[in-house]
Amino acid sequence: MSVLVVGSTALDSIKTPKAENPKLLGGSASHAGVAASFFAPVHLVGIVGDDFPKRYLNLYERHGINLDGLQKADGKTFHWSGEYEVNMNNRQTLHTELGVFETFSPNLPGHYEKLPYILLANIGPDLQNHVLDQVTRPKFVIADTMDLWLNIALDELKRLIKRIDALVLNDHEARQLTEEDNLLVAASKIHRMGPKYVIIKKGEHGSFLSSPKGHFIAPAYPLKKVVDPTGAGDSFVGAMIGYLAENKGGIDKNIRRAMIYGSVVASCCCEGFGLKKTTSTTRKIIESRVRELEKLTSF
Amino acid sequence: MSVLVVGSTALDSIKTPKAENPKLLGGSASHAGVAASFFAPVHLVGIVGDDFPKRYLNLYERHGINLDGLQKADGKTFHWSGEYEVNMNNRQTLHTELGVFETFSPNLPGHYEKLPYILLANIGPDLQNHVLDQVTRPKFVIADTMDLWLNIALDELKRLIKRIDALVLNDHEARQLTEEDNLLVAASKIHRMGPKYVIIKKGEHGSFLSSPKGHFIAPAYPLKKVVDPTGAGDSFVGAMIGYLAENKGGIDKNIRRAMIYGSVVASCCCEGFGLKKTTSTTRKIIESRVRELEKLTSF
Repeated sequence: MSVLVVGSTALDSIKTPKAENPKLLGGSASHAGVAASFFAPVHLVGIVGDDFPKRYLNLYERHGINLDGLQKADGKTFHWSGEYEVNMNNRQTLHTELGVFETFSPNLPGHYEKLPYILLANIGPDLQNHVLDQVTRPKFVIADTMDLWLNIALDELKRLIKRIDALVLNDHEARQLTEEDNLLVAASKIHRMGPKYVIIKKGEHGSFLSSPKGHFIAPAYPLKKVVDPTGAGDSFVGAMIGYLAENKGGIDKNIRRAMIYGSVVASCCCEGFGLKKTTSTTRKIIESRVRELEKLTSF
Repeated sequence: MSVLVVGSTALDSIKTPKAENPKLLGGSASHAGVAASFFAPVHLVGIVGDDFPKRYLNLYERHGINLDGLQKADGKTFHWSGEYEVNMNNRQTLHTELGVFETFSPNLPGHYEKLPYILLANIGPDLQNHVLDQVTRPKFVIADTMDLWLNIALDELKRLIKRIDALVLNDHEARQLTEEDNLLVAASKIHRMGPKYVIIKKGEHGSFLSSPKGHFIAPAYPLKKVVDPTGAGDSFVGAMIGYLAENKGGIDKNIRRAMIYGSVVASCCCEGFGLKKTTSTTRKIIESRVRELEKLTSF
């Protein structure tokens, strides 16, 4: 079945101790959309300016992503630049230029309104709520967020959380949202805010699911070298929604494996700058890493 | 088969934001010895002073621990006092009084010299080396260590590492020892120093094995409440060596499950001050948590 991915489409300039990469394709919808495309047809909603390179549109199209929902506006594409420290865990934003994103309203083309699997990738919760106002009885809605929205749009975020099936956030954000240090207790508190499924990301330590059918501890796929972790979280949730849309049997049956596929596609993302490694990944490579994770965790 | 556990036997005074507990039974050999005793007969080598409470000797004996190797000396038992911060991950040593431990030399009673499974729990690497000088062809030797020895006795520690089958250390220590941030690469470097098995502990994030038969990612058993994490690492490695001594088929066959049992006994340790919860644990509780971990990680 098909997936709707709504989020940011951006140009990322990423500096690491070893390299500088200007104007890579980035943004939560780009990473999540490409990740989901390995599993299911993707329909993307975002906005780009008149400086957005044709080669990036071609890249989306090579992944079979429907772009009827990609708005084109006069002005500059959202541009983020950041710098990673040596250990690749800490990053600093150097510059953010919103450009055409400042006036973005994610209006869905008519034929997007009944898409069954919806990923509200990381953008402002007001925009995420606006998407939910337009859709008709989706099967499954998952939302991602970030600390920025906890800081500046908490009420709007809480309104969103009531309306979704699954919330994905990282450990720091879960602690901030619930004012609770223990992640098991934090997950319980988030359930009481609305979602049946709470997924807490812990970076290189993997992720954690709390659901009606119990908890699940998902490993990260271990890497000897991380080149650029930008977009890893978006890739994780993108692969998750793609896998859920692809596989029959219901959410409870598939969500654990969906997280494993999420870990794998996120690991591919980290091995190259921007989307370079994700786009050159194949389903065969993904399946081989899933089998490796089976071996790495069996006892 | 039987296990030899050599390490510190101490009195711990532990302060947390919620409670103060003076002179609990502590020390690496106490935690590791009790943990191992759920699986195999334990022989303990340590030293206590004339202030060591009789009830703690009784506790060892209730766990079937052979105390022929426990030295008694005039003077005070090693006393450590520490304080935990609210989140229970950071602790500060308030006071250390070595007492009789200052002159401790772990000399083995004759009937200990052929014990097949040896745990060199956390003590100075000079003492750990001294133990290895006395034993005859053990089946498996595992050593634990801590940052203190990396700082003040690195050469002696490196000499030890060459002589053992397995090294257990935490992620910070692995990074410090190898000057390598990536744990997969750090593990490879440690293999080149000697041990066939490298186990890296990551606290609440579980642990990681690098071995001739590949890698293994072991989860921590998730707890809603951590009362006192002192001794969790000792309990982990104690349960590991006990499980390996109990089960036939060789190290490669059993080491993954040994780590799982280690995670479980460590989780029991964290639920009470000192050894309170570990000593009241039963094999039935342990097996039930192992089954839970199977469910928590299967996909």
